[in-house]
Amino acid sequence: MIDFDAYIAKLDWKREPHGLYEPIEYALSSGGKRLRPMMVLYGCSLFGGDVQKALPVALAVELFHNFTLLHDDIMDNAKIRRNKPTVHVRWNNATAILSGDQMNIEAYKALEKVSEDKLGVILRLFNTMTTQICEGQQYDMDFEHSDSVTVEAYLDMIRLKTAVLFAVSLQMGGYMADASEQNQEILYNLGLNIGMAYQLQDDYLDTYGDVKTFGKEIGGDICENKKTFLLLSALQETSAYTEELQGWLKKTDFVRQEKIQAVREIYDKLQIPEKIEKKIEEYTKKAFILLQECPQNEIQKNVYNLIVHLSKRES
Amino acid sequence: MIDFDAYIAKLDWKREPHGLYEPIEYALSSGGKRLRPMMVLYGCSLFGGDVQKALPVALAVELFHNFTLLHDDIMDNAKIRRNKPTVHVRWNNATAILSGDQMNIEAYKALEKVSEDKLGVILRLFNTMTTQICEGQQYDMDFEHSDSVTVEAYLDMIRLKTAVLFAVSLQMGGYMADASEQNQEILYNLGLNIGMAYQLQDDYLDTYGDVKTFGKEIGGDICENKKTFLLLSALQETSAYTEELQGWLKKTDFVRQEKIQAVREIYDKLQIPEKIEKKIEEYTKKAFILLQECPQNEIQKNVYNLIVHLSKRES
Repeated sequence: MIDFDAYIAKLDWKREPHGLYEPIEYALSSGGKRLRPMMVLYGCSLFGGDVQKALPVALAVELFHNFTLLHDDIMDNAKIRRNKPTVHVRWNNATAILSGDQMNIEAYKALEKVSEDKLGVILRLFNTMTTQICEGQQYDMDFEHSDSVTVEAYLDMIRLKTAVLFAVSLQMGGYMADASEQNQEILYNLGLNIGMAYQLQDDYLDTYGDVKTFGKEIGGDICENKKTFLLLSALQETSAYTEELQGWLKKTDFVRQEKIQAVREIYDKLQIPEKIEKKIEEYTKKAFILLQECPQNEIQKNVYNLIVHLSKRES
Repeated sequence: MIDFDAYIAKLDWKREPHGLYEPIEYALSSGGKRLRPMMVLYGCSLFGGDVQKALPVALAVELFHNFTLLHDDIMDNAKIRRNKPTVHVRWNNATAILSGDQMNIEAYKALEKVSEDKLGVILRLFNTMTTQICEGQQYDMDFEHSDSVTVEAYLDMIRLKTAVLFAVSLQMGGYMADASEQNQEILYNLGLNIGMAYQLQDDYLDTYGDVKTFGKEIGGDICENKKTFLLLSALQETSAYTEELQGWLKKTDFVRQEKIQAVREIYDKLQIPEKIEKKIEEYTKKAFILLQECPQNEIQKNVYNLIVHLSKRES
């Protein structure tokens, strides 16, 4: 397998104008799990393809993902990303907007290296994916101002915003390996389920994680009344705690730790942790079943281990 | 020739989520000259190509151009565009960032319709162009905080930010018509010279235009100390008016009309209007010479008339 982290570290961003490319280098150098490019490479090697040929697609996916983080951080006014100040904090909004735009373009530039006979399909798949990610982000922002978000609407939002990227990454990898349309569909659904489980695990960790391993503050979602699977599940049915929960949601002046603890206790009484764990397990199980349908090789075992690892992750 | 305005008006943006696509429709519906897609179509038909086949490229260029305006308006904190509130004013920054991102993606989606045998080259040309536009915007922002910007650096900045889009648009049109590499180079240089003249005319009109025909406030560049060809030419040589001009640049508290009139008078005494007119004429002349090298047909006459029209434009 390719060491993608080393590959991306070798990219040269020492270009002029410095002010445009330095923030790109900064954003990419802060690591991250490189999960999405891994999906492209796994999708390719699962079906016996040459991962070198899938590398431009893997790079495009990672560049695009990091571009969305950069712009999302402006929109969400996030101050910290991967233990470093976000680009718009370290520089300013204009720089973050423009460098993000260039990062988006760099993703499309990476696609230039896709072989001519496959470029048309890859461009279409890539565009469908990037469009759905933007649509997901818009729904996420719309939800902030809506009082009628259902758990189902939330799951559909994270499908667009997070899971489709995993899905299309695996699919594109498969396409680069000349996998059949049927197998590409399996890869797509495999990625979709991995991605759904991944995002729900994120929701879980934001409330129940350990600050030492999670790497960011715990309880941010609770303090911001973020409509996650946890909160929406808790609000879905009227219970003895509905009023208390609504009270916390309306409070504008509160001690963070008090609100976090109180809401977490309500979640516990409503067995929300069990509910989300069950949901994550459901998606993970589906992923395992789909993985069974893929060729039984060494890569399949790697993907299996990755899914297990992700479902147990604490960061 | 195709009625590009009618073509773009027919695009359907009534998609979900509404909050993502409505600002795109809003930005595109406010008109504009549609010059850049015209360049693509002219480049194609000059060399006898089928403009229908170049239409996806023309659309991509227009979408990308409008995306840059949308994001530039956030960066520059511009309130009005084409007599309407800008997207970030009408909605908010987050909406303008995300809808702009989607508009950028829509440009790349438009390229999906380029025939497979031409897609690779078009994608490369398009990416080179979009990258240079971002680089130009970065230089433009860098110039705000620099005291050592030369006229030459300024001309190079507008080459990237404005002229390359005209250049590559004409070139891509030619490529779609199977024009030879040599002819594509002619088209590129033709566009570059049209674009340079176009931007300098913009600078001229911002200071010397008539508010009635120009459609926006006159003197904005002067009030903001924007480093345009006019200001940089005036600062280039020490003159009897250097001190007075520097004084106006340093003043933070001034009556707009007083500053505009005073700086304009300095420009007049230094014969800056004559200098910029000469420069515009130089680029226009070069464009005419390059156009002579193109096939002598009806389209050539149209392009000739367009160049004349642009060099005399008052809006």
